[in-house]
Amino acid sequence: MLTALRTEVLRANREIAARGLARFTFGNASGIDRAHGLVVIKPSGVAYDELTPEMLVAIDLDGQVIEGTLRPSSDLATHIALYRAFPNIGGIVHTHSRYATVWAQAGRDIPCLGTTHADHFHGAIPVTAPMSDHAVAGEYEANTAAAIATCFSALNPATMPAVLVRGHASFCWGESVAAALETASILEEVAEMAYHTIVLNAEAGPIADALLNRHYHRKHGPAATYGQP
Amino acid sequence: MLTALRTEVLRANREIAARGLARFTFGNASGIDRAHGLVVIKPSGVAYDELTPEMLVAIDLDGQVIEGTLRPSSDLATHIALYRAFPNIGGIVHTHSRYATVWAQAGRDIPCLGTTHADHFHGAIPVTAPMSDHAVAGEYEANTAAAIATCFSALNPATMPAVLVRGHASFCWGESVAAALETASILEEVAEMAYHTIVLNAEAGPIADALLNRHYHRKHGPAATYGQP
Amino acid sequence: MLTALRTEVLRANREIAARGLARFTFGNASGIDRAHGLVVIKPSGVAYDELTPEMLVAIDLDGQVIEGTLRPSSDLATHIALYRAFPNIGGIVHTHSRYATVWAQAGRDIPCLGTTHADHFHGAIPVTAPMSDHAVAGEYEANTAAAIATCFSALNPATMPAVLVRGHASFCWGESVAAALETASILEEVAEMAYHTIVLNAEAGPIADALLNRHYHRKHGPAATYGQP
Amino acid sequence: MLTALRTEVLRANREIAARGLARFTFGNASGIDRAHGLVVIKPSGVAYDELTPEMLVAIDLDGQVIEGTLRPSSDLATHIALYRAFPNIGGIVHTHSRYATVWAQAGRDIPCLGTTHADHFHGAIPVTAPMSDHAVAGEYEANTAAAIATCFSALNPATMPAVLVRGHASFCWGESVAAALETASILEEVAEMAYHTIVLNAEAGPIADALLNRHYHRKHGPAATYGQP
Repeated sequence: MLTALRTEVLRANREIAARGLARFTFGNASGIDRAHGLVVIKPSGVAYDELTPEMLVAIDLDGQVIEGTLRPSSDLATHIALYRAFPNIGGIVHTHSRYATVWAQAGRDIPCLGTTHADHFHGAIPVTAPMSDHAVAGEYEANTAAAIATCFSALNPATMPAVLVRGHASFCWGESVAAALETASILEEVAEMAYHTIVLNAEAGPIADALLNRHYHRKHGPAATYGQP
Repeated sequence: MLTALRTEVLRANREIAARGLARFTFGNASGIDRAHGLVVIKPSGVAYDELTPEMLVAIDLDGQVIEGTLRPSSDLATHIALYRAFPNIGGIVHTHSRYATVWAQAGRDIPCLGTTHADHFHGAIPVTAPMSDHAVAGEYEANTAAAIATCFSALNPATMPAVLVRGHASFCWGESVAAALETASILEEVAEMAYHTIVLNAEAGPIADALLNRHYHRKHGPAATYGQP
Repeated sequence: MLTALRTEVLRANREIAARGLARFTFGNASGIDRAHGLVVIKPSGVAYDELTPEMLVAIDLDGQVIEGTLRPSSDLATHIALYRAFPNIGGIVHTHSRYATVWAQAGRDIPCLGTTHADHFHGAIPVTAPMSDHAVAGEYEANTAAAIATCFSALNPATMPAVLVRGHASFCWGESVAAALETASILEEVAEMAYHTIVLNAEAGPIADALLNRHYHRKHGPAATYGQP
Repeated sequence: MLTALRTEVLRANREIAARGLARFTFGNASGIDRAHGLVVIKPSGVAYDELTPEMLVAIDLDGQVIEGTLRPSSDLATHIALYRAFPNIGGIVHTHSRYATVWAQAGRDIPCLGTTHADHFHGAIPVTAPMSDHAVAGEYEANTAAAIATCFSALNPATMPAVLVRGHASFCWGESVAAALETASILEEVAEMAYHTIVLNAEAGPIADALLNRHYHRKHGPAATYGQP
């Protein structure tokens, strides 16, 4: 029953590598079938070009493997907890893409420095607070999702579809795994341009709210004018 | 009647992607047939590799669609207003190429730090002043062109064929859309080298006017000695 | 008798070039057959794409050529001394890959700034102390290995499989030459991300020991949960 | 009579583009036949992939065209004057490769920060002094060579086969045009690594003379041990 979702998740995992968002096996994509409450995710440590649809693992929201013989991604518990925390998302992409990871390692939000950013993210892309040693030593992966959820207590995951986990890397999401992948790609480009902007001018600040809103709403929501009707 | 122009505009749009000047659909090229007062531009949100000549939209200088069924680029009004403000240009290319955008986001002119720059641009490449919230909330795209025109009140668009729109990205122009594309390519290389130069030596200043003029006039104008006669 | 090792060493040398870890001939890989006490290494100054298995040189741990007619890598004595100093390693890869070399030239350890680093290296990647002019003028290559061994007096080469030789470049090792090559690839990515992190935030510090240990031990040792059982 | 030289110069010009050392037509290579006193150089403004051996121009050391119908490179007079100033060189390559140009624009010598540099250049790669407006307005190209020659009054062009022309870009030379091209490639890599090293650690200084000499003489001169005998 998960054939279409498996195909979509497989394509997103392969695209992670094809777009240069992850070296080696540093990344994973998942999708969820909300009707059946099942998550399809990459198996752990398998090279992107060796993946087949059957290798993907299907898990319910309690973490029980329903289909598949391989061990799921070691980040599975983060994915499941995010699907629980953000009930409207359909896909998650986690990568160690270079510049998004740099911002996560630097422990800084990515400010909205230009319209490329504003076209896709409604404001600064946040970095999570440090996790306690206790949280790290305990249910680390689930606690990572908890740190993200805390970070989003005043943010809307629909208009801010990405987060930087401090000292780690990014998680992106969207209505589908394909949308999450597109966000991961754009995040990396935005992160790289923001990095160079701050290096060039440490005083560079965010664009005006008027400009942020104008660009964001050209592409998103009922008044969008971008693309074809 | 616009067959040749459509072909040229199509090629320029494809080259934007082929040369790595724009990721996704972040860029657009247009050309103008001055005899008929018609602009040919990319449709909004269509991937570069899916474009066909028929998909391009022809619009008159009042913004009325004359040929084409797709919605034109969301930046159309900027293009039209630039063609009005700069009556001698024949093509415009807008991209979010990385380093030109970085300078736009940093809110800094690109100083003329070397002869690569001087070979193509006669002086610093300017950044526009901030737009008011009122201008952003109103006819934003046309107001963007107005900000460019204000910035060029004391500049010659023939010898300075590019501008950085603050917090946004670059617009380039030329006698033809092919010339505008070439300028966009060179701008990106010049912007990247200027960026690294300033990072390496924050005190680096512009080259002497004598050197700027010597290089610029080796390639441009009646005394040019570069290339074949 | 060294057929398998020759094949493995040949592949690693070619991969050094294929992965962009070395320009020109700036790098070399070797492997050791511990049972026979023989090291197989790249010949000096031969382009990676011209290498054949027969061109590789086999040398014993006293530095005597046992098989081969070409002159071995000029770094041979460093390899041999490292195989003596670290009796559990099976392969060594030396490259001048860009960002690892930048850290070596800057004379700085690469701090563990994130989980990408922690997944592969248990702590900061060290840089050796300066060598005396006397050591440089004498048995330079062997003395390079001695500087590495001194640097590792309180480090475990099994959990820290790389070093930066100050003012020079990196040496990586592992159970096999293939493992050493993988480490060299990951080192370069980690070095590049650490570089940008420090440029973005000079105050960025290492991640907490709890997070370092959590990630390192997810991938290494008896409690590892990463990959397939 | 210049067939072999034309082939060699053609190949070097094409390699300038193939190795990414020059965008567009920003670079040129020449070679000299000392027996006949003839220089073969790229024609001005011709794309690298359109060059044929017949398009190359042969000029004597007085600047008279001996063979060829196209206009020679606009930098011809610099090449000729360098062949006069440095009587032992056989080829010259001029490019605007990115990081070498950045150092030239920053007006800084490239210090010898590591052994990659020391393997090829015996000390810091110098930048020329600023040219006077008078020199720029006069015989600019010949005066560029004069500035280089002045810069080399205490340097040996055999052991320092490259220079940065301030505010402009690099010139490299060697026993042959192929050697000059190889130097241009290595210069760019060395320049990029030096750039990042200084950005990472502004206090990074040159390696000790002992290490510089050790590495330089491993690869150059009668005591060289690198490569095959």
